[in-house]
Amino acid sequence: MSEEVVVVDEILVKVREAMAEQGLDAMVPMSPENLAYASGAAPPSQKTVRSRLAAAILPADGRDTEIVTVRLEAPLVSSQSRLDRVTSYEEFVEHPIDVIAASLRSRGLADARIGIETTYLTHADHERLRSALPRAELRAVDEHWERLRRIKTPSEIERIRHIGRAAQRITEECVALVSAGSTERELGNLITERYHRAGGDALTMLVVASGERSAHLNGPPTDRVLAPGDIVRTDVIGTAGHYYSDVARTAVVGEPNAEQRRIYDLLLDVHHRCLEALRPGAISSDVHAIYHDAITAAGLPAYHFVGHGLGVTLHEGPFVNALTSVPLEEGMVLCIEPLTSLEGRFGMQIEDEVLITADGCELLTEAGEILRIGA
Amino acid sequence: MSEEVVVVDEILVKVREAMAEQGLDAMVPMSPENLAYASGAAPPSQKTVRSRLAAAILPADGRDTEIVTVRLEAPLVSSQSRLDRVTSYEEFVEHPIDVIAASLRSRGLADARIGIETTYLTHADHERLRSALPRAELRAVDEHWERLRRIKTPSEIERIRHIGRAAQRITEECVALVSAGSTERELGNLITERYHRAGGDALTMLVVASGERSAHLNGPPTDRVLAPGDIVRTDVIGTAGHYYSDVARTAVVGEPNAEQRRIYDLLLDVHHRCLEALRPGAISSDVHAIYHDAITAAGLPAYHFVGHGLGVTLHEGPFVNALTSVPLEEGMVLCIEPLTSLEGRFGMQIEDEVLITADGCELLTEAGEILRIGA
Repeated sequence: MSEEVVVVDEILVKVREAMAEQGLDAMVPMSPENLAYASGAAPPSQKTVRSRLAAAILPADGRDTEIVTVRLEAPLVSSQSRLDRVTSYEEFVEHPIDVIAASLRSRGLADARIGIETTYLTHADHERLRSALPRAELRAVDEHWERLRRIKTPSEIERIRHIGRAAQRITEECVALVSAGSTERELGNLITERYHRAGGDALTMLVVASGERSAHLNGPPTDRVLAPGDIVRTDVIGTAGHYYSDVARTAVVGEPNAEQRRIYDLLLDVHHRCLEALRPGAISSDVHAIYHDAITAAGLPAYHFVGHGLGVTLHEGPFVNALTSVPLEEGMVLCIEPLTSLEGRFGMQIEDEVLITADGCELLTEAGEILRIGA
Repeated sequence: MSEEVVVVDEILVKVREAMAEQGLDAMVPMSPENLAYASGAAPPSQKTVRSRLAAAILPADGRDTEIVTVRLEAPLVSSQSRLDRVTSYEEFVEHPIDVIAASLRSRGLADARIGIETTYLTHADHERLRSALPRAELRAVDEHWERLRRIKTPSEIERIRHIGRAAQRITEECVALVSAGSTERELGNLITERYHRAGGDALTMLVVASGERSAHLNGPPTDRVLAPGDIVRTDVIGTAGHYYSDVARTAVVGEPNAEQRRIYDLLLDVHHRCLEALRPGAISSDVHAIYHDAITAAGLPAYHFVGHGLGVTLHEGPFVNALTSVPLEEGMVLCIEPLTSLEGRFGMQIEDEVLITADGCELLTEAGEILRIGA
């Protein structure tokens, strides 16, 4: 039995338990993340060509699970999906919502309770589904999916660990290959090439931001030339087999000055204190307070969160911010990412991925001293 | 005045004309494509973190145009957008729909006719907007955006030409750098690196599919090793400054055999005949028939379309298929992409980007003989 089969089976058991709990007759996930989570498949053009809707049909009894996808991608989806069958529709000729509705009707679910994602399904598609199944109860189950995904299965943890470690190693290697006079884009290209070589599917959002740009969040690499004294902030956000990496590092070109050293050391100290607080039962807003209080006490601007769950999406529960007070649980995977940005000057960030264990946490990645780029 | 300003101004004039024609008081595009089209801005995490909704608010009088984005990306969005102002919302604290509704109310548009995209806006957000503006008429204008975008402005054409030509050149260069024994991923990595170096922002969907995999559509590169006799199909789908490239090529490892040569030559001949038919007034379904009839007459499987518009989305109007009979117009940019796939054996495809001109078409890219990879 391949690894993929195990991943999907563990997850489908959790999905069935959730349906029983919620009194649902079926769940029909359509978002790329919940489709990939439940089926193992990611139709390649699903995100790029929005009309090519894909869906899984998961009946409460666990039988005859189905994935619906555009015909031209059916062979690839068949090779990825671990659901019982693949149904495809002809683009331009059939509307995917009609195909999904027909499948539900043929299963005797025309007047059933169907769990859908109202924060993904477009208004137009929702109206079409409601017209096609006027007697069905379409129930928003977006939050149930979020909750299911919070506790990772062992196979999910392995996937996240693999690509997360690769992201850390690649950042360290590539930072060592550039120097003053290189551009952000050159550093970005090195990271991109090695990320693919390490098995990454795509860099969804690679950040390479130097000098003043390091204060901007989520800035892609540009042709800006690295100069001595620059802070360079990187964030390797991408996926391998649907699972995200999200590892940020701060580097300096040449010798850090006293201010840079002081702020980085503060950030690293705050990072360690946040990590020490992570264990089952710890409250996410308390972890945020450690960061927020230390950064603001130092007279620096704090960001509105210091962490988030990571999995088939980049940001998922639990959020580690002032507003979310959820107890952490064993099996959650979090990113902890203290940062501070001095607008117009520079920004620094340290981000590691961690697994909540029975009695604390395990670092999937581990930041150390500020990275150094040759001047 | 920078080039970006010119692009946005030409487009905003078209948008205002469309609003006058449709009797709309404002348009509020939220899809990444129409937001980028209208404002020039692409908030980086908009596609990756779906809750970080962004929108442009474009009143019919053209005054005080506004972009709404998540606060942490406001500095970057400010540097990209050519609208009059940027409004940002605090993630977790404010809901973007409420911020958009408040802006519309403050403009006296609480009971106005507002053009929205119902094929993008989620059902949950639509219901929230309707509750926040109970007296407004929310009108679906998805098709108006599609129509506006069909005829490209000169600046848009320049952008598409630039990255399209780069995609062609990079494919030719990288195919020449690999040989039997290389993997699909190695070829993919070479293309990725050079695409970024040429100014590409991201490869949204890079296809490198060899041997039997070349028959699958939209297959990403894998560790499959290229062997003599393999067909290798590439498709360089990515963006630069929001505009897509979409250029597909077919290569063979070593000498093509008689069957491979015959099918490729047929495809190239069909390609040339389709291109010769392109001019203002030509009907899209007639162009598709040239392809469909020739391929099926040769006993080969035809695909359900042979072309599509290209711009800030990968697939947009006009579609060149059997079902769409629209007259082509000067200023449209199309991809023409004859392909045939022998399932379990191999697939071949030729795809070029073309601009419809006053009396025919101009090739933005130009395919020739089958590409060769050393055996």
